[in-house]
Amino acid sequence: MLTDWVKMKMPEEEEIKERIKKAQDAMESRQLALKEHGLPVIVLLEGWGAAGKGSMIGKLIRNLDPRFFKVLTPGAPSEEEKRRPFLYRYFTGIPQQGKILFMDGGWIEQVTREMLQEELPDQDYRQRIQSIRVFERQLSDNGYLLIKCFLQVDKKEQKKRLSELQEDKDTSWRVREFDLWQNKHYDRCLEAYDRCLRDTDLDCAPWYIIDAEQRKWAELQLLETLLGRIDTALKNQEIAVPIRQNPFPLKEVPKLSEIRLDQELSREDYKKELDKYQKELSELHNRLYRKKVPVVIVYEGWDAAGKGGNIKRLTEALDPRGYEVHPIASPEPHEKARHYLWRFWKRLPKTGHVAIFDRSWYGRVMVERVEGFCSENEWQRAFHEMNEFEKELDDWGAVIIKFWVQIDKDTQLERFREREETPEKRWKITEEDWRNREKWDSYETAVNEMLEKTSTEFAPWHILESDNKYYARIKALRIVTGALKKKLD
Amino acid sequence: MLTDWVKMKMPEEEEIKERIKKAQDAMESRQLALKEHGLPVIVLLEGWGAAGKGSMIGKLIRNLDPRFFKVLTPGAPSEEEKRRPFLYRYFTGIPQQGKILFMDGGWIEQVTREMLQEELPDQDYRQRIQSIRVFERQLSDNGYLLIKCFLQVDKKEQKKRLSELQEDKDTSWRVREFDLWQNKHYDRCLEAYDRCLRDTDLDCAPWYIIDAEQRKWAELQLLETLLGRIDTALKNQEIAVPIRQNPFPLKEVPKLSEIRLDQELSREDYKKELDKYQKELSELHNRLYRKKVPVVIVYEGWDAAGKGGNIKRLTEALDPRGYEVHPIASPEPHEKARHYLWRFWKRLPKTGHVAIFDRSWYGRVMVERVEGFCSENEWQRAFHEMNEFEKELDDWGAVIIKFWVQIDKDTQLERFREREETPEKRWKITEEDWRNREKWDSYETAVNEMLEKTSTEFAPWHILESDNKYYARIKALRIVTGALKKKLD
Repeated sequence: MLTDWVKMKMPEEEEIKERIKKAQDAMESRQLALKEHGLPVIVLLEGWGAAGKGSMIGKLIRNLDPRFFKVLTPGAPSEEEKRRPFLYRYFTGIPQQGKILFMDGGWIEQVTREMLQEELPDQDYRQRIQSIRVFERQLSDNGYLLIKCFLQVDKKEQKKRLSELQEDKDTSWRVREFDLWQNKHYDRCLEAYDRCLRDTDLDCAPWYIIDAEQRKWAELQLLETLLGRIDTALKNQEIAVPIRQNPFPLKEVPKLSEIRLDQELSREDYKKELDKYQKELSELHNRLYRKKVPVVIVYEGWDAAGKGGNIKRLTEALDPRGYEVHPIASPEPHEKARHYLWRFWKRLPKTGHVAIFDRSWYGRVMVERVEGFCSENEWQRAFHEMNEFEKELDDWGAVIIKFWVQIDKDTQLERFREREETPEKRWKITEEDWRNREKWDSYETAVNEMLEKTSTEFAPWHILESDNKYYARIKALRIVTGALKKKLD
Repeated sequence: MLTDWVKMKMPEEEEIKERIKKAQDAMESRQLALKEHGLPVIVLLEGWGAAGKGSMIGKLIRNLDPRFFKVLTPGAPSEEEKRRPFLYRYFTGIPQQGKILFMDGGWIEQVTREMLQEELPDQDYRQRIQSIRVFERQLSDNGYLLIKCFLQVDKKEQKKRLSELQEDKDTSWRVREFDLWQNKHYDRCLEAYDRCLRDTDLDCAPWYIIDAEQRKWAELQLLETLLGRIDTALKNQEIAVPIRQNPFPLKEVPKLSEIRLDQELSREDYKKELDKYQKELSELHNRLYRKKVPVVIVYEGWDAAGKGGNIKRLTEALDPRGYEVHPIASPEPHEKARHYLWRFWKRLPKTGHVAIFDRSWYGRVMVERVEGFCSENEWQRAFHEMNEFEKELDDWGAVIIKFWVQIDKDTQLERFREREETPEKRWKITEEDWRNREKWDSYETAVNEMLEKTSTEFAPWHILESDNKYYARIKALRIVTGALKKKLD
């Protein structure tokens, strides 16, 4: 890619100037088209130290309105970011619809640096690449335009620039240790970049190598690349996205109609078991905090199935400084304007912490599917995307536990009525609950498909039979403590 | 406060048990009342190491629904937080209306630790206290209920608890160096706590000293304190808030009608000046980055006054990695549900960075006042609150520059028409702009009062006469470079 790269012939100065002017005008008008089409754009500039990423971004945004873009300079990950999955800082940074994000370095910079300086084991490198590929494809599938450019300068030119920067006291602070190291080990770095670029050269997000030796020429290449990609994306926005095949081995889960709900557990036995498991969980929470294991627990289930009470029996045993419950309602405007997994990425726990989701990303294939809040293509794609998301968490070292809290239709009716008749509980029942109940069959179809297609080996679904709430609570505790023990031992 | 504190008599065990049960039930029903009244609550638990803050929070939330509360454990500030004003981490953490935030330690922990371990100079200590007092009063004035409890244990009890924790391998990691240090220097720490508590004992947010030697008794005191305060707050929600007197010396600003708008500047002179100032600004940006000076620039002005073009002439000279423009539109739901300054605290720059606000917190006393989006009491209070906010930034070391971009009514009309007639500019003009124009006089009254009441010595308003856009741009550049030079020299 880089090692066999052939420079394009540079046009005459006059021509460059003219073409830049034309491209700038075009970019200015494109920002409005992006807004109107709701197209989000990520422009990732990677390249050598002193290749001019920062000043190129300065030029690109010159004619844009601040309402339409943002600039991100990720730099080295902070301590907080290091306690999250590799992609966390990039996924949480994605722009809203209609906006352009310019990135001054990103995942390539991070991975090559880790390779070169921290001696990333090959297996970890491959995992990083896999994460990046999934990330880029998911963005693209979900309507993001990702434009990736690598600013190339040769060893001599880089050295010259670094010296110039160092000589001026106003700019010498810009030269980082790593830049100098890079120039000294140019060939080794070139190979590392080449490998990274090859490994992340996707159909939906190919690499553009920009000849950055001459600044005006580099600017023109960038501008024209951006314009070309934006125009294509605007034209192709309506093209259907392929549904990916599921490459993850799945576990079998029963259909809802096959689930028995006649479990018995006396109040006395419940109290005993509850006490036993909560003590155990409390100790496990301590251990996973010390071992920095992150835990993600998902609750899905029918209205009034008893999710809240079930979650409470878990949290009673947890140190409040080490867990958070995330009740998931419909997304806010700034959430709706991004990839549907964005708001869940934002809520991921730190290592050693527990995040409990009271409803989750699975809303995509339940309420959003049934109510038509997303297209058929979107929810069909979502099964695989959510598996990929959970795979990321698994690779990161997280324990993932997913519960479907099941009750039958009569039990729901009983509980709805009880809620309506008990003043302190009335807030828990709304018109919407009754409307959802009318769509029980559509939901059942959706849930069955969800259970079938997203019960992977690394994140299987567990059924909590909750006509008997005691039984469901103890079963949840048993599964959680079991999973944690397995991870910790 | 602490040094002369007299313990309350502890009731009998049986009585404690009964009262706890009653209080727990009451808390459970209160969470709904909070939601219905939209009352946000912050419960700050401070106290000695091993006094049981964490486990008390665990008990308090036991009977609450996760939809209604959050737990925050601030700990020591992160590197990112250290590059923001002292209050940043606390202000950005405030809860939404109807929710309770439980804080496991907070500003008192931070300040006493700084005093004891980092030898905070007395002047800095006093500034911290002033910040805290303003913060707490502002929260209270803006409808927040702040409940502050200090968990008190004596030296002997603390020692006993620390030893117990240390002896058990599952809990020994919880004992921090600072806790041990604290116990060794108990008397010195007691004095520091005492001073801090005295200095922050406000009418609107008094301190409650909780006897934490016996856990059940501590829980009861906490529960009953919370309930008492919540019930009072729910009853008093409609009570009018006093308008504070402005203690900051103000600079004189002309009334809008007195501003002359006939400035002349030829295109040629403009180009020359622009070039000169942009070069200077570019160098200054470099220097302030190195010296870690934060800069906050505010643009307010009539629609079509030329704010966008003016901002662009600044940003052209800035390194895109070191500034951000924040276009401010109407708040999103999660923003509206908090203190109106919250979304601006969130957008504060890091040290060494520049934040440019295209419209700002002053919306409170312009659009929100004129359109009736806030009450008269609210916008009247806002003048002083915004001065206090800017004082925080000034104390932090920020350069604050505020521009009012002025044009006359005829010029606006001309520019509106031009926008409508130019296809690329048409998106910039909306029905709302025409509606606002009809309210020109109401806005003029509001703007005059704003300029008069918020032009402090540390953050004065500057008028940019913008009938001639060239003139306004050069003036802005002159003021910005001037202010930066003054700060840096």
